[in-house]
Amino acid sequence: MFLPNAREVLDRKIAMARSYGFTPVSPGDLTVPETETRHLRGLAISAINESLMTSADLIIANLTPFRGVSADVGTVFELGFMCARGCPAFAFSNSSENHFERVSDLYGGNVQLGPDGRHRGPDGMALENFDMTENLMLDGGIAVRNGAIMTRRVAPGQLFLDLTAFEDCLKLAAEKLLKPAIRA
Amino acid sequence: MFLPNAREVLDRKIAMARSYGFTPVSPGDLTVPETETRHLRGLAISAINESLMTSADLIIANLTPFRGVSADVGTVFELGFMCARGCPAFAFSNSSENHFERVSDLYGGNVQLGPDGRHRGPDGMALENFDMTENLMLDGGIAVRNGAIMTRRVAPGQLFLDLTAFEDCLKLAAEKLLKPAIRA
Repeated sequence: MFLPNAREVLDRKIAMARSYGFTPVSPGDLTVPETETRHLRGLAISAINESLMTSADLIIANLTPFRGVSADVGTVFELGFMCARGCPAFAFSNSSENHFERVSDLYGGNVQLGPDGRHRGPDGMALENFDMTENLMLDGGIAVRNGAIMTRRVAPGQLFLDLTAFEDCLKLAAEKLLKPAIRA
Repeated sequence: MFLPNAREVLDRKIAMARSYGFTPVSPGDLTVPETETRHLRGLAISAINESLMTSADLIIANLTPFRGVSADVGTVFELGFMCARGCPAFAFSNSSENHFERVSDLYGGNVQLGPDGRHRGPDGMALENFDMTENLMLDGGIAVRNGAIMTRRVAPGQLFLDLTAFEDCLKLAAEKLLKPAIRA
């Protein structure tokens, strides 16, 4: 919902999800009530998004790094929320660099392996180094729920527009979760 | 767990939580089993952290911006997880700038209000402007569970060490959740 053409991209994702047999829920399904303050408006949107999550059986989270080395925190909150509900969780990222590489890049490569066996930046902060796409809570939460993270390198201008990895998630989720009825 | 003196800070937080009447769980409570690969080790740590969360009744999340404009995504996953479990959720941040101010700073102040009523950076991406500490899913999830986000401006070198706002959360959580038994 951050994109200038958010509605258009959302409609494409909705159509794709339907084409794989899913019934998507998305922001915009419910109208945000009038509120007196910006803060109350934010709370109202949060309540709607939580109710949509509670109505859903599956999440496909966009973990493409957003304004920094990691995914959008709103999406990450939703991923944790759906994992706690015991739902199958899938994710995609249009960056093919792993978490360790991205944080190393943030430090300009100035990363040292310490005597405790952990890599640290010049600020002393440790880097996770688990061959994972994101922080281990995200990768781990998805893996333990039989999901997967599909990654793809896309052209820089397509970082938030290319839906190929999203479609890879739909394909995989349909294979795993929507078994065809077998004719007797 | 990213800090060079993580164990020491964790022990201080554990002692503080106990002093307010809580029984804290924390990384380090369970031993990570030996694994063959780094990836499997990451998964094992995730499984331990999830089991600790499932044993807990309350979260106090550290939302101090970490390596960018937003909180650590591992912590945010855990906040979403605990919110879905219906647990009271509290948070603290050692930055007193709100979300809109931090993202505006990231864009060097180059933020324009568009005809759709939304502020956007030069990349066209919208900024949330809800007088909130973080993305609305985080502030909203905490507010609806009767929690609060305690913020505090600290000296730059104390960003991840000052525990005053953490203690403010403990005080508030104890007031709200640990009512004293009344003598008959």
